[in-house]
Amino acid sequence: MTNDSAAGAADGGPRRGARGRGRRPAEEVRADVLRTVGGLLLEEGLAGLTFERVARLSGASKTTLHKWWPSRGSLALDGYFHAVQPALDFPDTGDVRADLLSQMRSFVRVMTRTPGGRVLTQLIGEAQTDTGLAAAYRRLYSSQRRALAAERLRRAQEEGQIRADADVRVLVDQLWGAVYHRLLIPDEPVTEEFAAALVANLLDGVGPG
Amino acid sequence: MTNDSAAGAADGGPRRGARGRGRRPAEEVRADVLRTVGGLLLEEGLAGLTFERVARLSGASKTTLHKWWPSRGSLALDGYFHAVQPALDFPDTGDVRADLLSQMRSFVRVMTRTPGGRVLTQLIGEAQTDTGLAAAYRRLYSSQRRALAAERLRRAQEEGQIRADADVRVLVDQLWGAVYHRLLIPDEPVTEEFAAALVANLLDGVGPG
Repeated sequence: MTNDSAAGAADGGPRRGARGRGRRPAEEVRADVLRTVGGLLLEEGLAGLTFERVARLSGASKTTLHKWWPSRGSLALDGYFHAVQPALDFPDTGDVRADLLSQMRSFVRVMTRTPGGRVLTQLIGEAQTDTGLAAAYRRLYSSQRRALAAERLRRAQEEGQIRADADVRVLVDQLWGAVYHRLLIPDEPVTEEFAAALVANLLDGVGPG
Repeated sequence: MTNDSAAGAADGGPRRGARGRGRRPAEEVRADVLRTVGGLLLEEGLAGLTFERVARLSGASKTTLHKWWPSRGSLALDGYFHAVQPALDFPDTGDVRADLLSQMRSFVRVMTRTPGGRVLTQLIGEAQTDTGLAAAYRRLYSSQRRALAAERLRRAQEEGQIRADADVRVLVDQLWGAVYHRLLIPDEPVTEEFAAALVANLLDGVGPG
């Protein structure tokens, strides 16, 4: 049995997760699905993610899932984005060095101590030969994460903590992008020391000064 | 007909590429194969690369190819490494800023104006779920490119052009790794201006100074 905005309640029978009569609001169903997907990904990685299983665990119908998320990849990316948002928040204490350091350390932890890193590298890998997945990746995950990072960096520029002539979009590639590089081509390890060096190199520069 | 170190010349017949009697030296055959593979990859990308075709074009036997390169991926990586080596040399004029700038610009050109970028992103993509290919990628390509880059950066450290306490391995991720990030997740374009910003951000720093 399923219970969501698409299914209706015409048969009047008992429904899992139903609260009183009628359909649950679409936003509530969507939030349940995203929570379910995020939980699965952070516990088991991509392997355990099927429309079938998400339908069963969230109480949404497979029809609704397929309508809202046309592919398993898009379902995974949307769920993953929402699942990591709290852990990968961009703090603003007014000190951009401290904030970048703490954000980058959290990022490294999620990437290396949860199945999160594996989820993303697998999706990035598949996206190299699947243009639909590549578009979903950018739309549902990377462009949104880039925008959040750039927003924090621009505030630091306004406060004079980052030089006004620096292109913050380039900094995103030299911080988080450098971590993805080591995740995707693991010649060197991804550690919190690495994260700290990324921040220091950029803020202080490595030239003779 | 094939002619290489593995085939021998017992039948005494004419052989393509044979010079006088006997087998060609293994090193000569290997160089021919790598040249053939590199040429194919830079002209057509991975799609045109088959053991069959490489055997036909290089004059090496398929037996030899399979003996030396156990997979199509390892053959591609070895050929690609040798093909781009001249264009992706690490110059040393004594000025690390100028040298990095010219190397990064060449790198961006190869990645965006030849099928080279596509060859690498496809192989990196496949390597996310193929551990044999991942190992070949690191052994035949990335670890060697990293070593060459680190060597040039260490010389700059010895000459006092890069701070002695900087970890040059991290700089590799913040220069070339940042380019790979944009190639693999193309939210933003890979341009020569981007390459120049990567170098400037690191050498000068983006902090208030």
